Amino acid sequence: VKIAELTTPALLVDADAIDHNLGTMSAALPAGRLRPHVKAHKSTALARRQAGAGHRAFTCATIREVEGMAAAGLGEDLLLANEVIDCGRLSGLDARVTVAVDSEATIEAAARGHIKEVLIDVNIGLPRCGCAPEQAGRLADLARRKRLEVRGVMGYEGHVVGLEDRGLRQELTEQCMGLLVGAHEDVGGEVISAGGTGTFDINTQASEIQAGSYALMDSAYARLDLPFRQALTVLSAVISVSGSGYAVCNAGLKSLGMDHGNPGMDGGHSVYLVSDEHITFGPGDPVEVGDLVRVLPAHVDPTVAYHERMYLVQGEDVLDEWPVDLRGW
Amino acid sequence: VKIAELTTPALLVDADAIDHNLGTMSAALPAGRLRPHVKAHKSTALARRQAGAGHRAFTCATIREVEGMAAAGLGEDLLLANEVIDCGRLSGLDARVTVAVDSEATIEAAARGHIKEVLIDVNIGLPRCGCAPEQAGRLADLARRKRLEVRGVMGYEGHVVGLEDRGLRQELTEQCMGLLVGAHEDVGGEVISAGGTGTFDINTQASEIQAGSYALMDSAYARLDLPFRQALTVLSAVISVSGSGYAVCNAGLKSLGMDHGNPGMDGGHSVYLVSDEHITFGPGDPVEVGDLVRVLPAHVDPTVAYHERMYLVQGEDVLDEWPVDLRGW
Repeated sequence: VKIAELTTPALLVDADAIDHNLGTMSAALPAGRLRPHVKAHKSTALARRQAGAGHRAFTCATIREVEGMAAAGLGEDLLLANEVIDCGRLSGLDARVTVAVDSEATIEAAARGHIKEVLIDVNIGLPRCGCAPEQAGRLADLARRKRLEVRGVMGYEGHVVGLEDRGLRQELTEQCMGLLVGAHEDVGGEVISAGGTGTFDINTQASEIQAGSYALMDSAYARLDLPFRQALTVLSAVISVSGSGYAVCNAGLKSLGMDHGNPGMDGGHSVYLVSDEHITFGPGDPVEVGDLVRVLPAHVDPTVAYHERMYLVQGEDVLDEWPVDLRGW
Repeated sequence: VKIAELTTPALLVDADAIDHNLGTMSAALPAGRLRPHVKAHKSTALARRQAGAGHRAFTCATIREVEGMAAAGLGEDLLLANEVIDCGRLSGLDARVTVAVDSEATIEAAARGHIKEVLIDVNIGLPRCGCAPEQAGRLADLARRKRLEVRGVMGYEGHVVGLEDRGLRQELTEQCMGLLVGAHEDVGGEVISAGGTGTFDINTQASEIQAGSYALMDSAYARLDLPFRQALTVLSAVISVSGSGYAVCNAGLKSLGMDHGNPGMDGGHSVYLVSDEHITFGPGDPVEVGDLVRVLPAHVDPTVAYHERMYLVQGEDVLDEWPVDLRGW
């Protein structure tokens, strides 16, 4: 199958770029030093490639992701790095499941749902989940009283991973990790899980890094000084060319996560306006109706979540089709 | 089933609000005066309600939507109000299919794909698809030479439908429709298809209005002077409550279209930060872990497209489950 035969819009993964990204990451963070986050790609086929690169433990953001990874035989060591209340859904799975907890209520929920292992989720600066660092020890004690095995701590310097200035990223990561390492001293266990694509080689105090975006990348992360290539594009067809100098292709708000702003485009095209099923753009090179163009997502995670499948491609050839099978909740 | 038993995040449709919306619209624009746009809800179950309210002709934005509507037995008169190149996918359907064309290339594609009927899509101000008004007659002649039945014209005042000032909306709609009516004189046929939720009672020159958002609504359209209620919310569970005054629920960038900005929230809560699977918010009323909160999407179309299903609810009761079965392309 050739790219030109695909129904558009279609999510493409460049085979050479993803091989480069997976290889670069597994060289820097081999085996268990990386716990790839599947939320970025929501695909067990891609996760299997990451397992093939040596990473057998994975990070998930939703119960559906844990269920899907277990069903795909990738459940050797799954961390649900998020607070959940309906833990009962996790108890029957053929997988080792560790859940993040940050409160008495989530510890209760884990115990009630017959979860065996937890991490204490610690807030290290991002205003989101996680207990205050000084509460971590108390919560670990409570979890152990509830007969939960406490494997250690996790935190996420999510407000730092996207900063373009490497020096600042470094400085703030150290501050964040100071809090997490301090909490870990109170909690115990072997695991200090943290980090993301933007801090994969900066966060040296975590025992494992939860990076996800590195595999496919997006134009927000591409602005940083990272050794990963943009492997993900949305293939789109030109459907209208105006006499006034602009053209329109058939990707849009339903094929692109928009929270990081407009996507980019290959071919020197400039994005003017994104609507539900259209991008109005200023052509760099001239285009005609029927031409295929490549759109570069600004944010990988909410882009992939719109699509049923990704196509692995090399040049004009479609090598494989990967279902985005971990969508939903 | 009660709302409290649903897996979160979940898309809820308030039964009273949608009944109000469908009833209000069909009173204002009965039967064929409205051609409901299914792109806003992507659900054949909801479209069947609209057919029950008297509207048997529908608007679609994608081939998948046309295919799904035909398969659901709702294919009496489907307008694909968008330019497509792979028209061959439409030829075998058990439906009357009319396709928008705006160029020689899309007319060729329609003829090659054995499409029988077309509308000439005319640009009336929004920088997107549509031929220049003065080209419409020439394209209609070309289409007829290709043995396509030309049913009339369509246009979309998409840059006007969301303006909060009703006077300005009125003035600009008249300008836009002046262009479309002029093009229609050159084209002929019975159809002048245009309009949206924001101009449903302002655009009196169109023979049919293509409104879609009116059924479910969103917080962008709620700012206008429209008689429709917000029927759509995302049910979400509180998963973390910080000691610093904020809380976190489990809706996020993958359950909400973000191009119109942050969603709103019921209960006096204020949205601070939206991440992939989290909303950090300032609680109005105090909340606890496990509480259910309602998130109000800013833009209905790209929100619905993230979800597998909607639940029709009344008070605490779940009355029905509607698959979002028209997603993808």
